[in-house]
Amino acid sequence: MRNIKLTIKYDGTRYHGWQSQQNAVTVQEVLENAIFKLAGARPRVTGCSRTDTGVHAEMFVCNFKAETTIPADKLPLALNTHLPQDIICIKAEDADSDFHSRYCAKKKRYTYYIQNSQFPDVFKVNYAWHYSYKLDIDAMQKAAKAFLGEHDFIGFAASGFTVKTTVRTIYDISVEKNGDLIKISVLGDGFLYNMVRIIAGTLAFVGCGKINPDDMEDIINSCDRKRAGITAPPEGLFLTEVFY
Amino acid sequence: MRNIKLTIKYDGTRYHGWQSQQNAVTVQEVLENAIFKLAGARPRVTGCSRTDTGVHAEMFVCNFKAETTIPADKLPLALNTHLPQDIICIKAEDADSDFHSRYCAKKKRYTYYIQNSQFPDVFKVNYAWHYSYKLDIDAMQKAAKAFLGEHDFIGFAASGFTVKTTVRTIYDISVEKNGDLIKISVLGDGFLYNMVRIIAGTLAFVGCGKINPDDMEDIINSCDRKRAGITAPPEGLFLTEVFY
Repeated sequence: MRNIKLTIKYDGTRYHGWQSQQNAVTVQEVLENAIFKLAGARPRVTGCSRTDTGVHAEMFVCNFKAETTIPADKLPLALNTHLPQDIICIKAEDADSDFHSRYCAKKKRYTYYIQNSQFPDVFKVNYAWHYSYKLDIDAMQKAAKAFLGEHDFIGFAASGFTVKTTVRTIYDISVEKNGDLIKISVLGDGFLYNMVRIIAGTLAFVGCGKINPDDMEDIINSCDRKRAGITAPPEGLFLTEVFY
Repeated sequence: MRNIKLTIKYDGTRYHGWQSQQNAVTVQEVLENAIFKLAGARPRVTGCSRTDTGVHAEMFVCNFKAETTIPADKLPLALNTHLPQDIICIKAEDADSDFHSRYCAKKKRYTYYIQNSQFPDVFKVNYAWHYSYKLDIDAMQKAAKAFLGEHDFIGFAASGFTVKTTVRTIYDISVEKNGDLIKISVLGDGFLYNMVRIIAGTLAFVGCGKINPDDMEDIINSCDRKRAGITAPPEGLFLTEVFY
């Protein structure tokens, strides 16, 4: 049995996230249907992350076991003929039999976009959070540094999930402004549920003066969800890179 | 009676172009409905250009006559509450009574995007023409120069329209590549029906070797539609600037 690793990209606007669920169209289900049309079998596809409704992926890795004889380098083009235009497979490889796209992921990078202008940009409505109050980038950059390193991020997680530990390591975080678009990029060994969106919402609160950047370290250490900012909306979030 | 000049932006994906028509939703109709909700009257809105189905506008100017007492600086925000998220008004001004957004336009800039890569980009599907054959940018830049100046562009126009003259002046044209995105920018005193899309399709033919860049001047002078390239699809086209 082959263990096939796929690298895909998707615009999450029309989907209820990655993971299959009743009564809602998800990326996993659409991809499994495409594999079925191609390979005649319907293997469960394991994803590297459970993205939420409206969240996008510039790079998403998943894997599935199948007997198909289609060579790996022919798979992307073959799969794409059965995929809608907002999901695309860009690479397929034969992986080791123990490769697991979620458990084997060592680092992930997420990017969050805030469109900071008086009016929303019609071309960014589904790809950025429109925030009309002027944001202070210097303050956001200063506050972002507090996230670096190993911390218990329980104060930056939505409830309703179970994990062994809420300790995560952030290797890199940056806040850049280009025109009216603010890009927050976070590289970590893993992320709790809604963690990047809460980081983005908290940095927006810093940017508009609701949170003092000097308090950021204290807010993280408090492990108190109520001291962090709001959960930024899903449309601004992109899974950008997965490292193995 | 006031003559109100609006500057709007729209994502044309969902619309059958600017101009109102039976049995199809257009930007003009949606904008007129929003003005009706706001001003209680339904004036005809005159647009600076008749964009086609799927064509976008980063800047589009239109005007209408109305008695409303809403100050111009309050109009954008008021109108936007009645507009869908893919159409936005960014500016409103009281114009002279003889201002006409189409007849008074002196220059327009259109931008055409080609996404030149093996696979389409899921985030560019509605905003660029996916062209998978490798394009030679140098050849396209060389050929583009032939469009500069005053020419009879009848060979670069779709049939089925009436204009007084098919002579137009191109003031500026550029072809740039950024990653896998090719941007063709054209500034002219006016454009014939489908002219920018035919220029883009012809430059793509130059880029893939079907047309020799040295033949470009001759092709333009021939006034023969059959010698130019194909009409590039609408989704790559943006009206970018209008000058008065």
